[in-house]
Amino acid sequence: MSTIKRQLEPVPFTQVTFDDGFWAPRLERNRTVTIPHLYRQLEATGRISAFDLNFQRPVPAPIVLIFGDSDPAKWIEAASYSLATHPDPALDALVDSFADKIIHAQQPDGYLNTHFIVTQPEMRWRNLRDWHELYCAGHLIEGAVAHYQATGERKLLEALSRYADLIDATFGSEPDKTRGYCGHPEIELALVKLYHATQNPRYLKLATYFVDERGQQPNYFDQEAQARGDDPAKFWAKTYEYCQAHVPVREQKKIVGHAVRAVYLLSAVTDLAHENSDPTLRETSERLWNNLVTRRLYLTGGIGAAHNTEGFTQDYDLPDETAYAETCATIGLMLWNHRMLQFSGESKYADVLERALYNGFLSGVSLDGAHFFYENPLASAGHHHRQGWYTCPCCPPNIARTLASLGKFFYSTGANDLWVHLYGQGTAQMQLNGQEVSLRQVTKYPWEGDVRVEIGVASPQRFTLHLRVPEWCERWRVAVNGEHASRSVSSEQLAVNGGQLSVNDGYIHLTRDWQPGDAVEYNMAMPTQTVWANPAVRALQGRMALRRGPIVYCLEGVDNGEIMLDRIAIDPQQVANEFQVEHREDLLGGVSILRGKGKVVDESGWEDTLYRSQPSSSKSIDVTAIPYFAWDNRTSGEMRIWMRTRGT
Amino acid sequence: MSTIKRQLEPVPFTQVTFDDGFWAPRLERNRTVTIPHLYRQLEATGRISAFDLNFQRPVPAPIVLIFGDSDPAKWIEAASYSLATHPDPALDALVDSFADKIIHAQQPDGYLNTHFIVTQPEMRWRNLRDWHELYCAGHLIEGAVAHYQATGERKLLEALSRYADLIDATFGSEPDKTRGYCGHPEIELALVKLYHATQNPRYLKLATYFVDERGQQPNYFDQEAQARGDDPAKFWAKTYEYCQAHVPVREQKKIVGHAVRAVYLLSAVTDLAHENSDPTLRETSERLWNNLVTRRLYLTGGIGAAHNTEGFTQDYDLPDETAYAETCATIGLMLWNHRMLQFSGESKYADVLERALYNGFLSGVSLDGAHFFYENPLASAGHHHRQGWYTCPCCPPNIARTLASLGKFFYSTGANDLWVHLYGQGTAQMQLNGQEVSLRQVTKYPWEGDVRVEIGVASPQRFTLHLRVPEWCERWRVAVNGEHASRSVSSEQLAVNGGQLSVNDGYIHLTRDWQPGDAVEYNMAMPTQTVWANPAVRALQGRMALRRGPIVYCLEGVDNGEIMLDRIAIDPQQVANEFQVEHREDLLGGVSILRGKGKVVDESGWEDTLYRSQPSSSKSIDVTAIPYFAWDNRTSGEMRIWMRTRGT
Repeated sequence: MSTIKRQLEPVPFTQVTFDDGFWAPRLERNRTVTIPHLYRQLEATGRISAFDLNFQRPVPAPIVLIFGDSDPAKWIEAASYSLATHPDPALDALVDSFADKIIHAQQPDGYLNTHFIVTQPEMRWRNLRDWHELYCAGHLIEGAVAHYQATGERKLLEALSRYADLIDATFGSEPDKTRGYCGHPEIELALVKLYHATQNPRYLKLATYFVDERGQQPNYFDQEAQARGDDPAKFWAKTYEYCQAHVPVREQKKIVGHAVRAVYLLSAVTDLAHENSDPTLRETSERLWNNLVTRRLYLTGGIGAAHNTEGFTQDYDLPDETAYAETCATIGLMLWNHRMLQFSGESKYADVLERALYNGFLSGVSLDGAHFFYENPLASAGHHHRQGWYTCPCCPPNIARTLASLGKFFYSTGANDLWVHLYGQGTAQMQLNGQEVSLRQVTKYPWEGDVRVEIGVASPQRFTLHLRVPEWCERWRVAVNGEHASRSVSSEQLAVNGGQLSVNDGYIHLTRDWQPGDAVEYNMAMPTQTVWANPAVRALQGRMALRRGPIVYCLEGVDNGEIMLDRIAIDPQQVANEFQVEHREDLLGGVSILRGKGKVVDESGWEDTLYRSQPSSSKSIDVTAIPYFAWDNRTSGEMRIWMRTRGT
Repeated sequence: MSTIKRQLEPVPFTQVTFDDGFWAPRLERNRTVTIPHLYRQLEATGRISAFDLNFQRPVPAPIVLIFGDSDPAKWIEAASYSLATHPDPALDALVDSFADKIIHAQQPDGYLNTHFIVTQPEMRWRNLRDWHELYCAGHLIEGAVAHYQATGERKLLEALSRYADLIDATFGSEPDKTRGYCGHPEIELALVKLYHATQNPRYLKLATYFVDERGQQPNYFDQEAQARGDDPAKFWAKTYEYCQAHVPVREQKKIVGHAVRAVYLLSAVTDLAHENSDPTLRETSERLWNNLVTRRLYLTGGIGAAHNTEGFTQDYDLPDETAYAETCATIGLMLWNHRMLQFSGESKYADVLERALYNGFLSGVSLDGAHFFYENPLASAGHHHRQGWYTCPCCPPNIARTLASLGKFFYSTGANDLWVHLYGQGTAQMQLNGQEVSLRQVTKYPWEGDVRVEIGVASPQRFTLHLRVPEWCERWRVAVNGEHASRSVSSEQLAVNGGQLSVNDGYIHLTRDWQPGDAVEYNMAMPTQTVWANPAVRALQGRMALRRGPIVYCLEGVDNGEIMLDRIAIDPQQVANEFQVEHREDLLGGVSILRGKGKVVDESGWEDTLYRSQPSSSKSIDVTAIPYFAWDNRTSGEMRIWMRTRGT
């Protein structure tokens, strides 16, 4: 809590490669399938040609069309990340020509939003609460920054800087400006990126203004509605908690409202805590994080229980089958936790990041890379399926940009520190104290918990290697060049092969003079675990989930016969004693599955009987569990994570 | 199924008295507290003075005001029933003066609806779907029939007959009539009553028309909406299932839509099966009854799971805490089952009636007689309480009229038959073959299962006494004048003290020459039972309820310490072996309570932990269960019927 300057610096994704069986093919599919697929969809739905400014649209337009600029903006970001790691002249040309189209659409004053230029020019800046106008600007800025960083080409960055200048001239606390901010946070974190790309401090100041002004009284959204002639009391969501504008950010006690908005806002709050050395923002972020992680987070890293608000409800209200758990929200959760992790390297943030990454995020995309979940419930009666596109297509390009820059989550560096947050076979290049250091992981993670970390230094170099101990890991061993850690007689610390080892905040810290050819063998025990929810989570009382390593498992209908999954119970003792792990390269792109015995309710005698004075008996059946992220890639049917533990 | 003429005739409530500790004080409280309380509320909310036709009301008016005539109409019915058993000059004068007011409000053409006379005369008969116009007529007719039967005074009956004549002249299948029917069934069953009171067959024909026309194509509600200039597709409930008008009644496969509407309609359908000797209507009623009782009925006799439609949802969708289970719907369920029971005396209908009566109906009124539940959920987090009145006050006067005529449910007569459907101490007078017969029950039912039935005949008389064996009763004994039933050597039947005894359809049939002074001792074993729901009821999986006799029990917070009730589990073996019944005259007006041991989740170690790999342990606690109907009469708090069976 005390740290308000980040001690860690993420190693950029451009410096991180994967050559494993898990991420490498997914990243390749993202590049070769998902990104082209999304462009075709954006074209087909007029979101590219919208920037030609010659479309017609009814008024009032569906809200999903009003914020349509954000979808190709995220695509530019994804495509730029892809170009940064995989040069591709055709994609480069496509991005460049679309960038030109965007620039051409920009108005003389810098304004750049196709809906309000073409369809409702008189409504510009009139409904920040509902119409995502600054949200679209934010995504265009993120796209422009990514494009500049990938290509070195400044034209799109400069155009969006001019738009940011207009926004800065329009909104602010100065008397000649409007005290507005966006109903959907996004521009705040984008402006921090723009500040870093341009070094122009006005953008940081504007982001700070947007965060500081949010929720102040008199509430801007009330005033804005009155100015439009609307009754503020008729706001459909009933409360500004929906857009985190009910009270000023620093006064918020719980994480509330629309989940994507909450985590995008908190990403910016975390950025600004660091940029402005503002402990009140760090405390705010920590407070809302604690509420989230102890009361409102799905086991999968999904967030937001409610469909009607796509958002948070009450503490401990975590129904499985009706979970909303939007993919975008889980992505935002990853972005926020990645930022929090950089302050001082506390594994709890990486734990949330990893939980989200391997479960509620990865479930968002099909194995073929061309179908996507918007919602990621933790159980399904069989009617929930990925689609190639959505009327509101926010999630698919969000998935694409996240996968295209995945490497950024894995490593950080510090003054004399090299942090390994996540595990996966591949290589990272970084500088420590001006020296090139490389790190290679050799591992079958997430299917096995053994990781060989090879350190590449040109000459001996002293630094601390920080290896994360995930929250799921209850036993581990570490060895340096073959020698296991042992307790030093002279110290509280452990000693290992000429170095010191300590453990805190969920990391093993290995300090030594690293030599060319050094290797660390890190073994995390990865048994199949049962997971139980706090008794206050009423929807999950008497139920249990299966987890192995970072992977949350589920039962899917196709593997478990004709039996309705809610009729199946699994005895936790059976899991501990008899469940088997089986790695299947031929299944679902290569997954480890769990097999064991369960019980199923014997329904005989229940025909046309609704109540009776005898419980059901049960009988033994074989059950198979697969990774949750991989469900709905075969014959469609039921799915369930949280299983009953009693047959009757 | 084959019987389409009723073989049984209910003994009128005027012939049935109670002198027990259970019903007698409740009926007295209904007469002395509830009926006066309701009149004051009706007066205070302008529902009495509305008939002076000089009120002002905004347009559009709230729907609950549009159908406001139905509330005092039900009060007249309740008050008339009360007058029929307890002459009361003051109440008589009050009813008479209100009857005059109603008569005075009637228009020259017979029309009689205060809203459409005063506020929207141009909208008369324009929105039968939504505006309850014929529903109000139905309740006024029921009130008028009751008033006539109680007082012999014909003026209100004649006024409502004129209104019925107008309705008959307006609606029907003849070319000069409108092919309409009411969105909310009620007038159909009222017209059958009016037919019996007046012997005018046109009212029976009109009721038949309303039932037959319902759901025919082209759908009247579509045509009516178009005639108003409304888009039928914009019907708020989306489907005419809501008002059971999606297909013709005889083609309906499941019981659907608004629950009160469904059971009011089915009461009329059952009436018309008998009146018109129509097997298709009997089959329809039976079919929908089977769907209800095997798929859609709460343990308490509540019906209708959904709040938004006050209605049915899907088979087996019976969530406890969010159950709507409107009191009016349970009353309608009793009315329908009472009608079905009269065909041939099958106990299954009386089982539903008894379940509803002692649980989901009786919960509707407080012990003080002046507070009412509209919704009767099967669990509460502590925020559900009875109120003295409601914006939509349909339930309170419905409760009053049901209690004021309660005796009608208890007995029937047939050609040579005397049926005892329900048990309760008191006396009934009836005629069998022109002979006066009296029957007296001496019992502490529902708290004890022993019933002494004393037969009063002036001279020996041969008939069959039918004693119901409730579905909850698994063991019983019967003795006539002290001699227990024994198997006859010469017959499949059992012999008892000079008569024959057979058992089928859930009744004991005792045929003999009854003598003055004869008495039957009937002992129903009444242990505390555990009740389990069909495994398809997902909300109740792994849970169990407690029942003793007809009474469903619940845990209430005030009896069970500071423990949240969803954290408590009860072992069914404990119930069988160790639970104690304790009768407490000092508690809740005199109830038998259940006491035993349960388990409560040990929440230690869960603070700020949402998931973990170890289940909770549990510890033993004392639990006390009270009758469900009596909850929310003391310190407010949680309530729960369906208990978990496992501590973790």
